[in-house]
Amino acid sequence: MTKRQPEPRSAYAAFLDLPTRWLDNDEYGHMNNATYLSLIDTAVSLWQLNNGLNIRGPEKLRFLVIETGIRYFSEAGFPDLIHAGLRLGHLGNSSLRFEVGLFRNNEDQTCAEGFFAEVLTDNDSQPIPIPDPVRAKLTPLILG
Amino acid sequence: MTKRQPEPRSAYAAFLDLPTRWLDNDEYGHMNNATYLSLIDTAVSLWQLNNGLNIRGPEKLRFLVIETGIRYFSEAGFPDLIHAGLRLGHLGNSSLRFEVGLFRNNEDQTCAEGFFAEVLTDNDSQPIPIPDPVRAKLTPLILG
Amino acid sequence: MTKRQPEPRSAYAAFLDLPTRWLDNDEYGHMNNATYLSLIDTAVSLWQLNNGLNIRGPEKLRFLVIETGIRYFSEAGFPDLIHAGLRLGHLGNSSLRFEVGLFRNNEDQTCAEGFFAEVLTDNDSQPIPIPDPVRAKLTPLILG
Amino acid sequence: MTKRQPEPRSAYAAFLDLPTRWLDNDEYGHMNNATYLSLIDTAVSLWQLNNGLNIRGPEKLRFLVIETGIRYFSEAGFPDLIHAGLRLGHLGNSSLRFEVGLFRNNEDQTCAEGFFAEVLTDNDSQPIPIPDPVRAKLTPLILG
Repeated sequence: MTKRQPEPRSAYAAFLDLPTRWLDNDEYGHMNNATYLSLIDTAVSLWQLNNGLNIRGPEKLRFLVIETGIRYFSEAGFPDLIHAGLRLGHLGNSSLRFEVGLFRNNEDQTCAEGFFAEVLTDNDSQPIPIPDPVRAKLTPLILG
Repeated sequence: MTKRQPEPRSAYAAFLDLPTRWLDNDEYGHMNNATYLSLIDTAVSLWQLNNGLNIRGPEKLRFLVIETGIRYFSEAGFPDLIHAGLRLGHLGNSSLRFEVGLFRNNEDQTCAEGFFAEVLTDNDSQPIPIPDPVRAKLTPLILG
Repeated sequence: MTKRQPEPRSAYAAFLDLPTRWLDNDEYGHMNNATYLSLIDTAVSLWQLNNGLNIRGPEKLRFLVIETGIRYFSEAGFPDLIHAGLRLGHLGNSSLRFEVGLFRNNEDQTCAEGFFAEVLTDNDSQPIPIPDPVRAKLTPLILG
Repeated sequence: MTKRQPEPRSAYAAFLDLPTRWLDNDEYGHMNNATYLSLIDTAVSLWQLNNGLNIRGPEKLRFLVIETGIRYFSEAGFPDLIHAGLRLGHLGNSSLRFEVGLFRNNEDQTCAEGFFAEVLTDNDSQPIPIPDPVRAKLTPLILG
């Protein structure tokens, strides 16, 4: 595992606000490790929903999550307002990788960074190519 | 609100084991207040599922939750093993009330007591009478 | 249990925004019953924190939750923005009762209403009188 | 990302039972992606607690989580009983890596595999060497 430094907001292409909840904090007074993943999950799900890129959208897209991960840099917790930055780190034939940086309140360095690797599938959970119109909707998340 | 005393295990008709999780504890080092309701929800859901009394069962029953409540007597938290005691406190024409006592580890007094008031409904969420075969399955939860 | 009707926003004294999360929805596609309590918990905790009325405030107040409850009127769920209305329904010698109405997006009728009954305690969890300065901070939540 | 196959139970050194809860399922009727991480978190926390290797133990050890990750192979969900298999994948000077396989009910192939990478720290969150007695307690998790 290589060392990594927290990234600035400029490393992300779109942002969503995610307030914390009282129960997000665990016994150490900080946000529970699993709750970070829930926030990242919410950021990706909300972006997909807002852009019609999920099961509720016109094309009823089924993106299957195959891998997730998080690197933790510093503590966050209730009552922080978390700003989730999103970008697309990979866009393959069937697969894509959402990368999400979490920023506390007004900070410009991520407190944590995570990803969701997904595969577009048919009703039988078999990978299918990502159609061009879907690619077009995803491109704003790709940083130059 | 009248004063209430914790109840013993003999006040309940059926029991389920519900282990706690690390994130159940909040910043005070005890189980979060909302998590108690999640445990009660799980106890009722599991009992209904095990007895075929939910949407997955043969009669595809839709019980709509209309009210819930909890009284807290003493603290529980990870890594406690919670034993949930169940009984039916009310069985009306369309409505019923599951009452659940939560016991920590080997204790014989509830640390918390809650209830789920539900109404049997049709596909349009309108109340319908609880059929006799369903009543028969519920009666073991009614204490003498 | 008497029938109750949903209340309008005018029945509450202060408001907080609480966005939903993807995992708030359960298998039925609606917000899980326990998650409503988590939102109410967050609304009360955040209001207390913002007003210096908790363990982190200058007077290090310990409010012990002794009872909670929720009435459900209609379904909410991700990605709804929930607006939590707060008021104080009771202010006794040691005890108080926060009442919280949850409103979906732009709706003016509660989808659910809940309460947190709390007692101010000393370090040994014994009830103590609520001091006048604390009462003064609570009065804006009491409706005429 | 290389392809990975699910592992059998023999690839793990210790096991813990983790029942699912009703609210673990999301709108798709399967366990939410973040909930898997909560189960892995609970498995690692419980094992550390049971072996005196955390803040509550005699040496008041502070293990800081720096990275987590999960690979998903097949769906699990309520009311599955999850069996968490643990092993130590890495034991360095200050750092260690718990690897956790999750097994549904009686299945012998993981439905998901995750890890918690942690660093032992002092009160100022600076890495310190893992003492030999702590290493001794960890070695049963290292597979031959």
